[in-house]
Amino acid sequence: MSIEIEDLAARIAAGERRALSRGITLVESTRPDHRAAAEALLDRLADPDRPGALRVGLSGTPGVGKSSFTETLGLRLVEGGQKVAVLAVDPSSARSGGSILGDKTRMERLSRERAAFIRPTPAARHLGGVARRSREALLLCEAAGFDVVLVETVGVGQSETLVSRMTDIFLLLLAPAGGDELQGVKRGIMEIADLILVNKADGDLAAEARRTQADYAGALRLLRKREIDPDDFPMARCVSARTGEGVAEAWAEVERLAEWRRETGITARRRAEQAGQWFEEELRAGVVDLLREDRALAARLDRLRAAAASGESAPAAAARAALEPLRQALRGA
Amino acid sequence: MSIEIEDLAARIAAGERRALSRGITLVESTRPDHRAAAEALLDRLADPDRPGALRVGLSGTPGVGKSSFTETLGLRLVEGGQKVAVLAVDPSSARSGGSILGDKTRMERLSRERAAFIRPTPAARHLGGVARRSREALLLCEAAGFDVVLVETVGVGQSETLVSRMTDIFLLLLAPAGGDELQGVKRGIMEIADLILVNKADGDLAAEARRTQADYAGALRLLRKREIDPDDFPMARCVSARTGEGVAEAWAEVERLAEWRRETGITARRRAEQAGQWFEEELRAGVVDLLREDRALAARLDRLRAAAASGESAPAAAARAALEPLRQALRGA
Repeated sequence: MSIEIEDLAARIAAGERRALSRGITLVESTRPDHRAAAEALLDRLADPDRPGALRVGLSGTPGVGKSSFTETLGLRLVEGGQKVAVLAVDPSSARSGGSILGDKTRMERLSRERAAFIRPTPAARHLGGVARRSREALLLCEAAGFDVVLVETVGVGQSETLVSRMTDIFLLLLAPAGGDELQGVKRGIMEIADLILVNKADGDLAAEARRTQADYAGALRLLRKREIDPDDFPMARCVSARTGEGVAEAWAEVERLAEWRRETGITARRRAEQAGQWFEEELRAGVVDLLREDRALAARLDRLRAAAASGESAPAAAARAALEPLRQALRGA
Repeated sequence: MSIEIEDLAARIAAGERRALSRGITLVESTRPDHRAAAEALLDRLADPDRPGALRVGLSGTPGVGKSSFTETLGLRLVEGGQKVAVLAVDPSSARSGGSILGDKTRMERLSRERAAFIRPTPAARHLGGVARRSREALLLCEAAGFDVVLVETVGVGQSETLVSRMTDIFLLLLAPAGGDELQGVKRGIMEIADLILVNKADGDLAAEARRTQADYAGALRLLRKREIDPDDFPMARCVSARTGEGVAEAWAEVERLAEWRRETGITARRRAEQAGQWFEEELRAGVVDLLREDRALAARLDRLRAAAASGESAPAAAARAALEPLRQALRGA
């Protein structure tokens, strides 16, 4: 490992924010030499004995008040002496190159706190790339000593699953709404949510928020019972990001669940599974990169891919043929 | 290739239903020798010059009447002299091992037709496996001379994306509902739908169905304009699976869009892209299988995976280390 990486690792471990930013920029880079450096950095900072941060996923459709909720929650945690990092996973950035949280002014107060760190989503060419970078950024925040890492996502498509696969606890933020709209939340998302928080439970919307909360509480009871969790989870609660009402109580529930899962070993088991899956994904991506490094193999790959694309070969058979040189190389080794 | 596979291929190409069933069972098998035979079969049947079936994806939440719509549409197509195959992609089968369309009696009349073929979803361990088998089953149906292949999915999570990636045209079936529920359809699904069909447009619900259709037509106009398609696509239409009303008209729109996309070369380009993606996915999966065939490499993989899972190593760095023998074998070859 180079001296620079060693130094960067030390500075991240010491909690230096600029070093953390640089580290995240490194894991976001697609340059091969940066990639190798990023892996070395992450490996240097890996520590099985570090208790790590509480990793919390947060999802909600645009307009539900995700940024203000994050700001209100983040400020409370900082006041309580905790260090909070906020990351974002935006699947649409794979298409548009855009980013959520790009406008940091939406969390103006939180972003000024020394104990808080807010990082917008990187643009990436595909969803897998977004996920890889976000989870590596998460590991860096953890190594930098953050107590809580919030991973935000907009409620579109596959992003909730991705985020739930890198966090310990998943929160779903909803707006007050008539009972008819219950079906607007995908069942798959209800299934990963540990807490449903109905935001905007203030002023004119307070009563409607209570009703929405009751509706979702009922739906959660119908939907499933995770035997491994305390009896009252998953649950639905009301919060108001604007007035702050209910936010501390909701967080207390998050902490109670986190404590339970830590003590029962659920979190450790879940993290081990997640890290195993990341390994598999990295393996799949890495091996194709490796094949492409060899010019003759890359040409063979391109030829067979073209045969699959034209319909001349079945995709699976073409892929098998593409792997034949590798099979032989492994036999000869 | 074995004589048996050669024979099976010939019988599938001759349109023998039992041979088609056997072929699909073969692609669904996870046994390595079956897998190799399945790939040989698919490759034998690959034919870039075959015009192929019209591949149509169909999604809708449970209760919307997907099975009755499919039956009504299927019977009409069969009456019109077309051969119709119905496949199903059920992401939940990755968890439950269950299947949709399992109850063929729900399409009792269609399943008795000689020109129709209905195949429930295979159980699979993961969503990638479900997708692989479904698209290979689709290729077999095409080789067996079906004119239309309908690929059904329940509207949960990632399955619509999977299905849209293996079809030419995507239909979304909805129930009549108040305008407020518009947000219940995920934007990502609205974006892949070429036709939105509001079912149950009969009896008491007829007026509500018209309103729902108008709402969605408006939403589609706001959402996007695919410049490559005719001006009036994507569109929303009313149908009644029960009375059959609107079904022929809706299918005429499907055929008009299909014709347009065929003539402009859009379908050919899209299929080439899809087949290229399938190739990449097969490649990724195949290479990991290959590494696991070598006992020493497999042990190394397991060790490094364990290091990643325990947090001792960073997943990406462990994956890179796992690939090191491969890198060396390729250099030596």
